Amino acid sequence: MNLDVKIVKVRSWDVRFPTSKNAHGSDAVHGLVDYSCVYVQIFTDAPDDSLIGCGLTFTIGRGNEVVKKCVDSLKSRIMGVNLSEVVREFGQFAHSLANDNQMRWLGPDGGVLSLACCAILNAIWDLWAKIEQKPIWRLLCDMNSKDLINCGIWKHLADELSPQEALDMLTSVESADDIKRRIDHVTNHGVAAYTTACGWLGYTDDYMKDKIQNFMSEGWTAFKIKVGVNLQDDIRRCKMVRELIGSGGKLMVDCNQKWEVDEAVKWVRELSPSDIYWIEEPTHPDDIIGHQKIKSEVNKLGVRVATGEVCKNRVLFKQMCSQGALDICQIDCARVLSINELIPILLLCRKYNITVCPHGGGVGLCEMIQHLAAFNYVRIAPLDPNSDSPPLVEHADHLSHHFEHPLNCFGGVYNVPESKTAGYTTTLKTESLAKYAVSMSE
Amino acid sequence: MNLDVKIVKVRSWDVRFPTSKNAHGSDAVHGLVDYSCVYVQIFTDAPDDSLIGCGLTFTIGRGNEVVKKCVDSLKSRIMGVNLSEVVREFGQFAHSLANDNQMRWLGPDGGVLSLACCAILNAIWDLWAKIEQKPIWRLLCDMNSKDLINCGIWKHLADELSPQEALDMLTSVESADDIKRRIDHVTNHGVAAYTTACGWLGYTDDYMKDKIQNFMSEGWTAFKIKVGVNLQDDIRRCKMVRELIGSGGKLMVDCNQKWEVDEAVKWVRELSPSDIYWIEEPTHPDDIIGHQKIKSEVNKLGVRVATGEVCKNRVLFKQMCSQGALDICQIDCARVLSINELIPILLLCRKYNITVCPHGGGVGLCEMIQHLAAFNYVRIAPLDPNSDSPPLVEHADHLSHHFEHPLNCFGGVYNVPESKTAGYTTTLKTESLAKYAVSMSE
Repeated sequence: MNLDVKIVKVRSWDVRFPTSKNAHGSDAVHGLVDYSCVYVQIFTDAPDDSLIGCGLTFTIGRGNEVVKKCVDSLKSRIMGVNLSEVVREFGQFAHSLANDNQMRWLGPDGGVLSLACCAILNAIWDLWAKIEQKPIWRLLCDMNSKDLINCGIWKHLADELSPQEALDMLTSVESADDIKRRIDHVTNHGVAAYTTACGWLGYTDDYMKDKIQNFMSEGWTAFKIKVGVNLQDDIRRCKMVRELIGSGGKLMVDCNQKWEVDEAVKWVRELSPSDIYWIEEPTHPDDIIGHQKIKSEVNKLGVRVATGEVCKNRVLFKQMCSQGALDICQIDCARVLSINELIPILLLCRKYNITVCPHGGGVGLCEMIQHLAAFNYVRIAPLDPNSDSPPLVEHADHLSHHFEHPLNCFGGVYNVPESKTAGYTTTLKTESLAKYAVSMSE
Repeated sequence: MNLDVKIVKVRSWDVRFPTSKNAHGSDAVHGLVDYSCVYVQIFTDAPDDSLIGCGLTFTIGRGNEVVKKCVDSLKSRIMGVNLSEVVREFGQFAHSLANDNQMRWLGPDGGVLSLACCAILNAIWDLWAKIEQKPIWRLLCDMNSKDLINCGIWKHLADELSPQEALDMLTSVESADDIKRRIDHVTNHGVAAYTTACGWLGYTDDYMKDKIQNFMSEGWTAFKIKVGVNLQDDIRRCKMVRELIGSGGKLMVDCNQKWEVDEAVKWVRELSPSDIYWIEEPTHPDDIIGHQKIKSEVNKLGVRVATGEVCKNRVLFKQMCSQGALDICQIDCARVLSINELIPILLLCRKYNITVCPHGGGVGLCEMIQHLAAFNYVRIAPLDPNSDSPPLVEHADHLSHHFEHPLNCFGGVYNVPESKTAGYTTTLKTESLAKYAVSMSE
């Protein structure tokens, strides 16, 4: 395929969906939120003028305009650049985008700067996959190990994972047959999902009950609910869900960073009789040592520690992994520096035998994580000896119908995009963009 | 004093100084930079219309417009608010500003969001001190311990430092006489400083030599130079400086986050024959475990580890302290949530016996840190049994003449603002604002 195309125009959009109206997305810390995104379109000088690289980063409303402003400030870094040059040293390119010698002060490696870079990089990945006429997960699965390493950002990881060690991990374990077998598995059986759409904090007990029963009738068996504001409420809600789903179902809880370290342990202890599969974001996302303390206590209760959706960068993930601070790593596709930073993070998880259950919800996150979950299963994650299937991926789908290739997720299974569906599947429909965009610049 | 004034207007400015012309501020990571700031002016309904709270945050050029945009998005949170209500629960107010339920997604606790909140909070502190007709350092030194605790942000610190433990530390150790004695000491003898203005990476050997000799003739004895690009150059430069300053002088080096963990240890080993007092920012600023590894090795060479100027928040500092990852804590007055987040950080340093040497340079940083250094010495830091004087504060003064109350720092001593100089001493001169501001909104 011809990657020799030049980037000639970059459009950025501030898009807001009024989700706060129905309490979708409400939790112990964020209250009512309006799922939003900064959407980036990259145009090239290719003869096919329908070719547009589309990428986004997610926010929960106010502040989206700040991320868009940052995207606008970064545009000059990619204007006029040739795609073949970008992907030739893609990891270095991604790192240098976030490390403009002056703009890096806005991070480094986190916050608005990373969100903005991520939207741009996601659009570049989409452009690449569209030219290759493959969905992202197949683009990644089909890539040779050396090229995958070349796409990754390795700076400041060498003490735990050098590029050479990563390459050895990728190349030494998998045979071509094994890769093909797993691609077939993903194609035929999809990726297992759990749902968060049943347990937002703003939902009443009755509404939750109805939701869960509906999900169960469709075949779902794993559920996550929000906790962290009122302990007695949480005990009651957990009991209720456990009774509904029976002992075979999985129940996860999420307090969205609400608690102090010791508070987290106490609270989880009270909920644990309801057989909690994991506690998610128990405390401040940067608190590696805090998570380590919590994990050592709640593991005794059979509860796992999950975190990662707002983890700022690979260096924090490196420490989370090496310090035994988490059981479940919840990568996000719109927070760190796109797939370029996720590749080393997935390999760190593999090195430390940490299960990857990507973060979904919001706008476009589910559309992206299905690719990463499939890629991780096929090329990186150790096989789970008990199930030989990809681990659970989050699902909370309110806004998928705004995308040209909406999710195909039913009964607890993501049916991953078919081979003919090219790109990162986050191209917004023209009419949705027209209706929900509040500003655009190019 | 009457704090019952309402905030009626907030002005934000994007101010840029073309410092890249002379290679001021050049280092191993940031190359040529243009010192910039987002400057915030808070107007009230007080009868005295010359009363304006002025605060700033510092950046190194491109991206300053993104921070200003974020300030603009936060303005509605303080418009119409009464100052007396703000300072009554100042810590909570500061935390809630950065934790607007939607905007916190842009952090949390770091990057553009923290920089923007910091500019606003710095302006509120300035407003308060101007009404009290005291410099910030005296406002803080004169405050009772309970009020100081009330100004602090304590969320997510409880496992290492609860507000009660912090209060006990503040109240139990110091007598009123002791506080008075130290205030007198600071007033009469100032705060000891070291200079960074001699060793930017873009300076030639001859230029450095001249600079250092000039500084020495003025009485300076502690010098910091930039390293990290070329080992042989660094060895030569360190030797040259050591020969110039003799065995009595202090020499610090700073690589601005350039190195991998193991690389840092090797590089410092090569420089250590020149008797290096500290290595600053040896690796990624979020790498607590990396700093811990580096410290355990370079301490054997007599070299200390210093970091903190871009450390994103109190939770990262908490771990840096509790994990033995640093010897010298370089707080910054424009990076975290103003004095509200610095109070717990200073107390964490006290708890773990870590020396605080604040980060200066840029625009306005030296103007602010002199207050924090004096306050830390008077109310928080343990006495150094060998010297009974405040620890070294950074000095790199290129832009001080743009402020209405420029620094008074000569011969290695900061003469802290006199009692009659009210505020945080970061009020820019009208003519400087007119000349260097590129945009303003209100």
